[in-house]
Amino acid sequence: MFISFEGTEGVGKTTLIQRIYAHLEQQGKQVVLTREPGGTPMAEQIRSLLLSVNHEESMCNDTELLLMYAARAQHLAQVIEPALTQGQTVLCDRFTDASFAYQCAGRGLSQEKLELLNDNFVSRMPNFTFWLDAPIDIGMNRARERGALDRFEQEKFSFFEKVRSGYEQLWQKYPERIKRLDATQTPDQVFAQALAYLDAV
Amino acid sequence: MFISFEGTEGVGKTTLIQRIYAHLEQQGKQVVLTREPGGTPMAEQIRSLLLSVNHEESMCNDTELLLMYAARAQHLAQVIEPALTQGQTVLCDRFTDASFAYQCAGRGLSQEKLELLNDNFVSRMPNFTFWLDAPIDIGMNRARERGALDRFEQEKFSFFEKVRSGYEQLWQKYPERIKRLDATQTPDQVFAQALAYLDAV
Ligand SMILES: Nc1ncnc2c1ncn2[C@@H]1O[C@H](COP(=O)(O)OP(=O)(O)OP(=O)(O)O)[C@@H](O)[C@H]1O
Ligand SMILES: Nc1ncnc2c1ncn2[C@@H]1O[C@H](COP(=O)(O)OP(=O)(O)OP(=O)(O)O)[C@@H](O)[C@H]1O
Ligand SMILES: [Mg+2]
Ligand SMILES: [Mg+2]
Repeated sequence: MFISFEGTEGVGKTTLIQRIYAHLEQQGKQVVLTREPGGTPMAEQIRSLLLSVNHEESMCNDTELLLMYAARAQHLAQVIEPALTQGQTVLCDRFTDASFAYQCAGRGLSQEKLELLNDNFVSRMPNFTFWLDAPIDIGMNRARERGALDRFEQEKFSFFEKVRSGYEQLWQKYPERIKRLDATQTPDQVFAQALAYLDAV
Repeated sequence: MFISFEGTEGVGKTTLIQRIYAHLEQQGKQVVLTREPGGTPMAEQIRSLLLSVNHEESMCNDTELLLMYAARAQHLAQVIEPALTQGQTVLCDRFTDASFAYQCAGRGLSQEKLELLNDNFVSRMPNFTFWLDAPIDIGMNRARERGALDRFEQEKFSFFEKVRSGYEQLWQKYPERIKRLDATQTPDQVFAQALAYLDAV
């Protein structure tokens, strides 16, 4: 079972994934908790490049997209595929849907470019995806309380509106795989809603 | 005019490109000397990841390929395209042919994967390419004298034989664009042979 967690900044992905991780571990399951971009030492170095706000130049959209997929290739080969082969459950904080939402819907890159990378460099898609959805300002306020903002978090409100509508498009396109969670609820409520879906599969 | 310089380790690419740079500058031309992977501060950080021998894990072939193209996208947009638009001559130490030679012929990645990246992420090909060709041991001995070996230079002899034959395939496929230079000659002779080609175009 490969489950991804998606949504705009600060909606509560990391909070939820940790609770689900603890819950599944308690049930005696072998669970791997990982994240993108990142998840291996090398992919985490690529993540640092992607999130850094200290670059001397602005990062081109194509560069951003290709770095995401470089990190993803490493992560799939080193972490996700081996874990799934061993029968473990993989919980991943963001995956390819984030590339569609941020790089296509957000930055404006063509969907064909993305699909071509998915077809050639992504060996496997999640079986199940939680989309935590909330108005942008709610998540941004939660994220801001956490500290300094990274290169993505520094984007404009209008960028995140596009990202959110990108996620909505995906949710409408893949209703079987992607489940929407109302992320304006309390952490307990979000967790309960997620568990209800999980118990059904 | 966009000219690239290709060949296996230590054949004399950097030596030749510097001489041609000085020669064209003396003629009053505006010339940009750059290299791949790298050529911008951000692309040079990606280069460091690619060449480092201090990774905790081995780099997957797809990761290597995608990092090369991430660096290239940045380099094209920030350096190569602006210089060519201003009518400058661009001399580039390695370009896409190196991806074919190293990642396809050397590592065994499919040519389709590469062409799909070229078609979608490479806005322009060199007008002219010098392929410095010499037996692998000659270049490796020259490179070894220069100091510590990077992640590519640490590869086996058989890897570089495949890379060299990759370059040969390209030379046979694109005889108009790619000119072979006999890199077993002295630096003066290699330079003279290159100038003869350049004067003809
Ligand atoms: N349902 C919730 N209600 C209120 N606050 C929440 C909720 N879920 C998480 N938080 C708090 O909001 C902040 C952001 O949560 P979290 O880090 O889980 O979000 P995230 O989606 O992982 O953010 P990012 O996109 O930056 O990784 C944290 O301080 C967290 O404690
Ligand atoms: N034609 C030549 N004959 C002998 N030595 C040479 C020749 N050209 C370059 N060298 C020497 O060989 C070494 C490698 O040359 P150079 O750095 O130009 O190669 P390169 O192709 O750029 O190598 P790399 O692939 O590592 O970048 C240098 O010490 C240089 O001075
Ligand atoms: Mg998080
Ligand atoms: Mg060199």
